[in-house]
Amino acid sequence: MAHITLPDESLPGIVGLFNFRPETAGPLQLLAETLLRGESPLTSGERELIASYVSLLNDTHFCHTSHGSAAMAHLGYDVSLIDDIKNGFQQIEISSKLRALLDIAAKVQKSGKAVTDEDIAAARAEGAGDKEIHDTVLIAAAFCMFNRYVDGLGTWAPQENEAYREMGQRMAFTGYVRFPVKADVVEV
Amino acid sequence: MAHITLPDESLPGIVGLFNFRPETAGPLQLLAETLLRGESPLTSGERELIASYVSLLNDTHFCHTSHGSAAMAHLGYDVSLIDDIKNGFQQIEISSKLRALLDIAAKVQKSGKAVTDEDIAAARAEGAGDKEIHDTVLIAAAFCMFNRYVDGLGTWAPQENEAYREMGQRMAFTGYVRFPVKADVVEV
Repeated sequence: MAHITLPDESLPGIVGLFNFRPETAGPLQLLAETLLRGESPLTSGERELIASYVSLLNDTHFCHTSHGSAAMAHLGYDVSLIDDIKNGFQQIEISSKLRALLDIAAKVQKSGKAVTDEDIAAARAEGAGDKEIHDTVLIAAAFCMFNRYVDGLGTWAPQENEAYREMGQRMAFTGYVRFPVKADVVEV
Repeated sequence: MAHITLPDESLPGIVGLFNFRPETAGPLQLLAETLLRGESPLTSGERELIASYVSLLNDTHFCHTSHGSAAMAHLGYDVSLIDDIKNGFQQIEISSKLRALLDIAAKVQKSGKAVTDEDIAAARAEGAGDKEIHDTVLIAAAFCMFNRYVDGLGTWAPQENEAYREMGQRMAFTGYVRFPVKADVVEV
């Protein structure tokens, strides 16, 4: 049972919260869409792996598994490989650049202040530029928000990787935007 | 010096990052606008206090002080009172309901899983409903993102409360949206 009364208790994780409060769902979905599927020097598969990895570090099963499933869809792996994110990427092939960026993401998960000049230099040595570093830090920070939102309101989540197969494919290929964003706020 | 090369190093905190990456600035500003100035049973002053308090707990001076200044502008206090947030609200008057919600926000700052049924019951006993609890959790979670973004990229911040006076008034009364949000993402 969530900490608040949701209109549809059958909807898991953040989905039930989006349904409860469409006014905040719009900007949150637009942010996810921009961070994970917008223009970036990092592929969507790489960005979904960062999102899933940070969610794992925050122990948020719903986000770890759903974004893990989206990553697998992008990268052409089966959802059975979501657990490989827990196991330090033994089966999934990741570049040394992405490994260095995941190290930065792990620091951000602890605190923004935990990121050191050495962490940044290590990523640059593997070929990461300013935009890759920026996007990694912001995605890691954003999942510290999404994870706290999902857990802080006590939402439920299916346990098995298999239950996230379709959701991950939808996130990867259809995207995140479901609720419209209020136009009067968008005008500048 | 920030960890990445910003187009204008004189812009402090998140402002320089917005300038570096307008594509992500749009959704982030829209989220701040919705959370802090959109429709809610909590006043904007109360919501800015939650934002400032969580930023203090994350030791992010820029966000603590700028949102503290916005809170003071909303509540009719001088910026000299920003420090009162550090001192447990001895001079600023806050309701027992807001105090209970700030306790929930402090739990969210640690981890979403730290929020207990007892924390929720305590807020309900002071008159908080589902929407107030939801908005508190989401604002606290969002500032765990904004704080990590600002600190994780090593941005600088002015020290004195006085330097945030105008910024806080602008945040409170003009709002957060500066960059347009891409319309093709908004369409649903």
